[in-house]
Formats: sequence, C-alpha cells, structure tokens
Amino acid sequence: MEKVYVCGVGATPISEHWEFSLRDLMVEAASRALNDSKLSKKDIEAVYIGNMSSGVLQGQEHLGSLFTTWFGIPGVSAQKCEAACASGGVAFHQAFLAVASGVYDCVLALGVEKMSDANTYDVTSALIMADDQDYVAFTGVSFVGLNALIYRRYMEKFNVKQEDIALFAVHDHKYAVNNPLAQYRKAITIDTVLNSPVVADPIRLLECAPIGDGAAAILLCSEDLVKKIEKDNVIEVVGSAAATDILSLHNRKDLVTLNATKIAVRKALQMANIEIKDVDIVELHDAFTILGVIHLEDLGFAKKGEGWKLVKEGEIEKDGKIPVNMMGGLKARGHPVGATGIYEIIDLVTQLRGEAGKNQVDDAEIGLAQNVGGVGGTVTVNILKRIR
Amino acid sequence: MEKVYVCGVGATPISEHWEFSLRDLMVEAASRALNDSKLSKKDIEAVYIGNMSSGVLQGQEHLGSLFTTWFGIPGVSAQKCEAACASGGVAFHQAFLAVASGVYDCVLALGVEKMSDANTYDVTSALIMADDQDYVAFTGVSFVGLNALIYRRYMEKFNVKQEDIALFAVHDHKYAVNNPLAQYRKAITIDTVLNSPVVADPIRLLECAPIGDGAAAILLCSEDLVKKIEKDNVIEVVGSAAATDILSLHNRKDLVTLNATKIAVRKALQMANIEIKDVDIVELHDAFTILGVIHLEDLGFAKKGEGWKLVKEGEIEKDGKIPVNMMGGLKARGHPVGATGIYEIIDLVTQLRGEAGKNQVDDAEIGLAQNVGGVGGTVTVNILKRIR
Repeated sequence: MEKVYVCGVGATPISEHWEFSLRDLMVEAASRALNDSKLSKKDIEAVYIGNMSSGVLQGQEHLGSLFTTWFGIPGVSAQKCEAACASGGVAFHQAFLAVASGVYDCVLALGVEKMSDANTYDVTSALIMADDQDYVAFTGVSFVGLNALIYRRYMEKFNVKQEDIALFAVHDHKYAVNNPLAQYRKAITIDTVLNSPVVADPIRLLECAPIGDGAAAILLCSEDLVKKIEKDNVIEVVGSAAATDILSLHNRKDLVTLNATKIAVRKALQMANIEIKDVDIVELHDAFTILGVIHLEDLGFAKKGEGWKLVKEGEIEKDGKIPVNMMGGLKARGHPVGATGIYEIIDLVTQLRGEAGKNQVDDAEIGLAQNVGGVGGTVTVNILKRIR
Repeated sequence: MEKVYVCGVGATPISEHWEFSLRDLMVEAASRALNDSKLSKKDIEAVYIGNMSSGVLQGQEHLGSLFTTWFGIPGVSAQKCEAACASGGVAFHQAFLAVASGVYDCVLALGVEKMSDANTYDVTSALIMADDQDYVAFTGVSFVGLNALIYRRYMEKFNVKQEDIALFAVHDHKYAVNNPLAQYRKAITIDTVLNSPVVADPIRLLECAPIGDGAAAILLCSEDLVKKIEKDNVIEVVGSAAATDILSLHNRKDLVTLNATKIAVRKALQMANIEIKDVDIVELHDAFTILGVIHLEDLGFAKKGEGWKLVKEGEIEKDGKIPVNMMGGLKARGHPVGATGIYEIIDLVTQLRGEAGKNQVDDAEIGLAQNVGGVGGTVTVNILKRIR
C-alpha cells in the first residue's frame, strides 16, 4: 500500500445557493482545493464524486463526466460514489484506495449536494431512499421519524432526559459562529432548541441538521508528488475504512448502537496503528442530536448510555478531553448530504494545519472523521495525521 | 500495485424479471459468483455496485447496505458506483483498485439494473440523465436521438451505407443464440433490421440495445488468496482504466470519435504492457450498431471510417481476425445499464476459461472489454489474461 497525503482542500459556503447550479458548486469547490494546493489541473488523474440525489433532485446522473467537462479536465477518470449521507465518506475512501494502489498519483475527492431547489421529488422523498423503499419508505415514514425511534429508545433504555441530548445542537452552533463556511453562524440556547417545533416526536426542529447546498473537495496525492511540491503542513491519511450494517432498524437487535461505526473505527484505527485515545479531534455525523451522543459511544469515547455526559460536562469543547465538531458539525456548519463527509475531513485538515482561528484546538495532530449513511447502514471512518 | 485475479463470476439471465426485485437480482448474481468460486461469503471484504437509475426507477438509493443486508454480509464495505451506462465498468475498475491497493483481499464487483417495471420516471427520461440535463436533456431529445446524430454524421463523412453498419445487430443476434443468459436468443437477418421501425432517424428499432433487467457479479482477489484456493483457469486483470470526455456532443470537435475510448484503451494497454494486436477477443459496448463500428476504430482495430468493413468482411466472427461480442453483445445478450460492464467482463471470462461452448474462440488468452457511459462521456477498458 502506497502512502496517501492531503495536498489541497476547498469548499463553498453551505447555504441556499439559488444562484449556482450543481456543476457550479463542484467547479467552485475544486478550484478552491486546487488554489490551496501547489498543483495544477493537469496533475489530477481521477475524480470521485460523493453525491446521493442528483438523479431525483436535478434529473442529472453521470456527474463524473459533467464535472470533468466543466472543470476543464475531460479525459480524467471520474465517477459518482453513492452511499446515502455517507456518499462523501465513501468517495474519500475510494480516492484513498486509488492513490494507495499506486495506479494514480493525484486524485480529487469531491462531494456535492444541491437540495434547496429540488424540483422533481421533494427532499423528504429523496432522503428516505437511504432506507429500504419496499419495506420501510413505502409506509410514509420520514428519515426524521426513523431517528426519532432511536432517540425514544435511547432515552427510555438509559433514563436520559432530552435536554441532556439536545445540548449537542447548542454545542455545534457555538462553534459555527467562527466558521465562514457554516450555514448557521449563530449561537443558540438549550431553551431555543427545546421550544422549537416537534418534527417527529421527540425530535425538535433545532435538533435536526438543516437542508442546504454545498460542495467540498480534497486533493489526495502520493508520496512522490507530495515530495515534489514541498508543501508545509503535510497531512497523511493514516487510516481509512468503510463498513455497512443491516439497512433498516426493524431488523437490528439494538436500536441504540450503530454496528457499522464500531467496525469502521476498529479497521481505521488498526490501519493507522493507533488507539482511540490517541485521537486529538473528532468530526462526527450528528444529523440529529441523538446521533452525536450515540457516535461518541460507538467510536469508543464513552460507555454505552453515557455519551451525553461528555457533552454536558464540557468534554467535547475546544479545551475538553476530546474536542468534537469544532467547525459547527452537521447541525450548524450544515449537511449537504453527499458533500458532508468531505466537509468533515476538510474541517479536520483546517485544525491539523492550525488554521482554525478562534476554534483552533491546541496541538491537534491526529483527527478522526466519521460519516454516516442512512440510519447507520453505511459508516466511514477516516483518520488524518499531521506529519510535519 | 498488487496483482488482481478473477476468482468467480455469476449473472442472472437478462430478461423482463417481473418476478424479481432489484435486491433479488443482486443476491442471485452474487450467489452464482460465489458458487463459481472456491470462496465463502465471509471472504468478501468490499462490494462495488454499478447501477445508474435505482433512485429514479425504484426510489431506492443506498444499494451498498441494501445488498450486504440481503446477501447476509452486513459489516462489509459497500457502495454504489455511477457513470451512466459505464457504471458496471467503473465499479469493476474500483474493485480492481481496492484489491490492487493491498487493503482488500477479496472484493465483489456487482452490476444491476431493473428497467422493465419502472414506475416513477419512464426509462427514456432516466437514460437521458446520462447527458447534460440543463443544456441537452431539457430539449426533449432522447438518448437514441443523440446517437442518431453520430450515425448520420458517420454515414455522410465516410460515405457508408446504413446496411453495412446495421450488420452489427445481425452479428450480435447470431452469437446470442448460444448464450443461455441472453435476452434475445434468436438470429435475425439484415432485412429484418432494415425493415424495423425508425426510432430516431436513421436508427431502426433492431439497431438498438433492448431494455431489460439483470445483475452480474465478479469476485476479484489478491495473489495470496488465489494461491490459497488453487483454482484452475486463473485469470488476471492485467489492465484497467477509465476515462472521460466532454459530456455532450455539441461541445465536441468530432462526432464520430470517442476520445474517452482512445484514452482508456491506451492506459489499459500500457498497464497490461501489451499492444492492441495482442488482444484475442473483445467485448464492446454496441448500444447502437453505429457505436459498435466506431468502437472498433477507436480501440485501434480499424482505421477511422473503416470499422464497418471488419463486420462486413467477417473479421469480427468467431474465426475472424478479432472476434467481437461472442456472447451476443448489448444488442442481443442485453443491456441492463449499470450491469452491462460486468456482463461484458463475465463474457470474456467464459471465453478465456474455454467454457463458451459453440461460441468458443480457439486459444483465447487475452480479452478486452470496453464499457461506455452516455455518448462516450465515460469509457472504461479492462483487459483480462488467462495465466494458466
């Protein structure tokens, strides 16, 4: 296996981008990543695009060729990677493998989703395609509804109050204030969260990641190339793994554990040859507050049923034991589905480079990003390390 | 780069499978591939699923977890790969890279498409998503219409008659007769083709690949694993490449050359360290008769404007200079879009193993499969070699 390095990152702000199309967002993110690197367009040999719903929302498939055409690099290998909300994470994993194989020296991992101008299906219908259409989606349950089942079960099983779980949203908003790319740069209080409307009982509106548009891009390169461009702040991808779980909740033994997280984190740590306690900073996929809590447990930072304590006790803050979602997380940075996995890794890179401004965690050297598709049907874990 | 071997193949017949769902087809193909190998389910470490339109046709995304769930291997890494009609080819390329990287020892490349029971969009609308929605598809042009432009231009530029191009369909049907998986196992004459209805002038109905359902699966494994299972007929993937071109015809300089084919075949041959003349047998993506002719040229078997001569002079027959589409090609074996690239490679494997019965090409040792997405926006070329 060849070593793999991050040599450039770039992303659009997450917002309702009425003025930009799907292709515009991709081109903008890729341009920013290229500008951030010391590479030029002709160095790019392959492109992996994480996207979930361009077919149903824009009537557009074949994003690979669409992107290479509009970015001005036709010829280059390109494809779309889909695993619901983990599409960005699997695209990154693929880009990683492409460089690790030695076949490619420079690969672009891109994620994009445009959700605010959906015209053919509405976004709720598009998102539930992450679960089983024939046995789950057809009932009319929404994606929020499925997560509400997890939430209710968690509260009952571990006797935890909603106000302790909902704190995750307050946490995310606090840090998004200082992230120029974040969708909601505004602090909120726990009262605001708990008084917001119920979307699917018990989930409140402000416990849900918003709908938004965005694209994010990361250039990965081989050891040969990274030596050639002599970049400061070299960051290596030391671990990369993807795992699946049984697609739908009704077939699982345990509603409050995502097995795919446990498998993916084990594999990624093994590849990185580190333990979870060695990780300095985490980006996790808190599409709903309850998921943030559960991920802390499944990743190995807390015992089952006790993840909420880390939040309540300030341990996921900038100066806490394990800083989490330092750029606003899914709730406040935003969650343009297929792009989220890439945004998470860019947020890690920003921290590992020491470029996170007011949100900078001291001495962040190893970062871990977890990206989740469906209700945990797919999970990716990627681990990055600053090596100089 | 680690070496990569084919250790099992399997596919469903291509048909209108009203009795099977998308997941059933995937599970059936994967089961057949597993039975063909000496491996068991627990050996599979990652899955790449080529599929174009499950979102718009079945309201189902997240095929990775859907498949691992229903095949009984939850946990395993899995994702969907999409590049329009080249989705199968890019899934195979990814599976190849995953094993080549050394990260995975056993990977399943799967392709699936279910087109005959489309309920949300009709298939014509789904297929045109392979081209540019905002600048091409919105005009109402169909995918056949775009290929008709290529066809007309070719006939005019090289002064070739339709009856010489349409022969490709006769060729495919002749060989499909002996393929138990083929959708149309019936020989046809050139008169039948030329008297069939016009779909988009000049393309006749029997010059078009049909719509159908099917799934196909290939198990790829590392050198360590292939040694362990001591399989006869070991087949190595010696070359694998993907390339893109400008997405839409109106932006290209030349309508009758697919640049992505030229790039992909050059790269794949280079990796395999062979020349095109070393290839013994070819599967190419003749979604329309004219494409078969053009591919022969772009792959390097004929000069530009002269591909049709190979067909007319019998050079692509079983005993010809370069046997092509020996199991019926897209026209008669069938073209379940995202599965086609995998079917093509399976057809090569059948030949390289000497298991093609009446269609067997003598001493076939090196095979090449070309898979095309859109009007050449993406092309993959994979080269397989029997090494014992």
